Amino acid sequence: MSSPLVLYSYWRSSAAFRVRIALNLKGLAYELRTVNLVAGEGEQHHADYRRLNPQGLVPTLLDGERVFRQSLAIIEYLDEAYDGETKLLPPVARDRARVRAIALGIACDMHPLGNQRVLKYLDREFAVPEVERQRWMQHWIGSGFEALETTLAEHPSTGSFCEADRPTLADCCLVPQVFSAQRWGVDLAPFPTVRRIHAACMALEAFRRAAPDAQPDAPRG
Amino acid sequence: MSSPLVLYSYWRSSAAFRVRIALNLKGLAYELRTVNLVAGEGEQHHADYRRLNPQGLVPTLLDGERVFRQSLAIIEYLDEAYDGETKLLPPVARDRARVRAIALGIACDMHPLGNQRVLKYLDREFAVPEVERQRWMQHWIGSGFEALETTLAEHPSTGSFCEADRPTLADCCLVPQVFSAQRWGVDLAPFPTVRRIHAACMALEAFRRAAPDAQPDAPRG
Repeated sequence: MSSPLVLYSYWRSSAAFRVRIALNLKGLAYELRTVNLVAGEGEQHHADYRRLNPQGLVPTLLDGERVFRQSLAIIEYLDEAYDGETKLLPPVARDRARVRAIALGIACDMHPLGNQRVLKYLDREFAVPEVERQRWMQHWIGSGFEALETTLAEHPSTGSFCEADRPTLADCCLVPQVFSAQRWGVDLAPFPTVRRIHAACMALEAFRRAAPDAQPDAPRG
Repeated sequence: MSSPLVLYSYWRSSAAFRVRIALNLKGLAYELRTVNLVAGEGEQHHADYRRLNPQGLVPTLLDGERVFRQSLAIIEYLDEAYDGETKLLPPVARDRARVRAIALGIACDMHPLGNQRVLKYLDREFAVPEVERQRWMQHWIGSGFEALETTLAEHPSTGSFCEADRPTLADCCLVPQVFSAQRWGVDLAPFPTVRRIHAACMALEAFRRAAPDAQPDAPRG
């Protein structure tokens, strides 16, 4: 039986990576449709894709006829609509709030500043040279991880993963942000808890199978 | 009886404004503690506040001893923990996903690029002149509202408010973003649905009482 779930994804998009992890953790089969963000002016701007996603951003999820946008909203939807064994949000409201706050600290305060369209603006409009764009990335990722490290290290409910001993929405966000940090040459040495949780995640097949290099649209060789 | 809820807020912070709206819509009393983001290097960086909020961002909510961070996570928590008559998230999963996607489109893809710390970086590190910083703001707010206008105008479940005929989390985000747009001189004429919903919200006392100018820490006169 074919799955009703279709994911529009790009191999290096952190936001798509989050949703791929969630789908895998929940054991949900899906059809992958790739959107090449860097070919020409980007397939995300084609009229057909804009109809699905007026922001021209990946990911977009289809569940049958229904269209879902924004990675965190998609993951919460999957968790609510597809119950299953694995829950990505904890059962208690105050723990859910903590998981969401970690996810949002990454999704609002770290990731958007390194979005491709932002770097393009810095380059084209402000003529910011590449070395300065790299420093910009390192600044926002570094200061974000500094706060996240404190949040994780000081809180008693941090376990093998961000919240207790099972992966949640927070881990779905942490791992792609670590990939991005590595890509931009951010020194992760000062963030031992972040590194430990990242390693625990990457020991799981659900995370490895969602990784950029494991995607069919990743460059080969 | 005194409320267990304490909100750390700054009058002009969009993120704090969202939570003030939510508290008012739910009819929850709270103690307001102001954090001056612009005095000196900013009270948000004081050690005492950093202990509550390692990111050094407002808002922070206390519920008794418990600390909550990130405006969207705080609003979802209030909606779950304080049931009451007014629900800020709709009862059906696919509608909740739509409300969250609208909120996240603002909170992730518009607001963070205009955060004070980002504008400060553009000024101090890249020496971007004020007129260019204003163009930066107008670009991100304008393109964000363009996508939001399409999303709202085309969807059958848009009503008097973003989702049907009662304010939700999405409206808690839309209104502060319109305030920010006005502050930065963004032309809102091309966004009639955004303007219509903003007007419907501002007809409600819960929104008016949460507005920047109505705050005790707003400059007088």
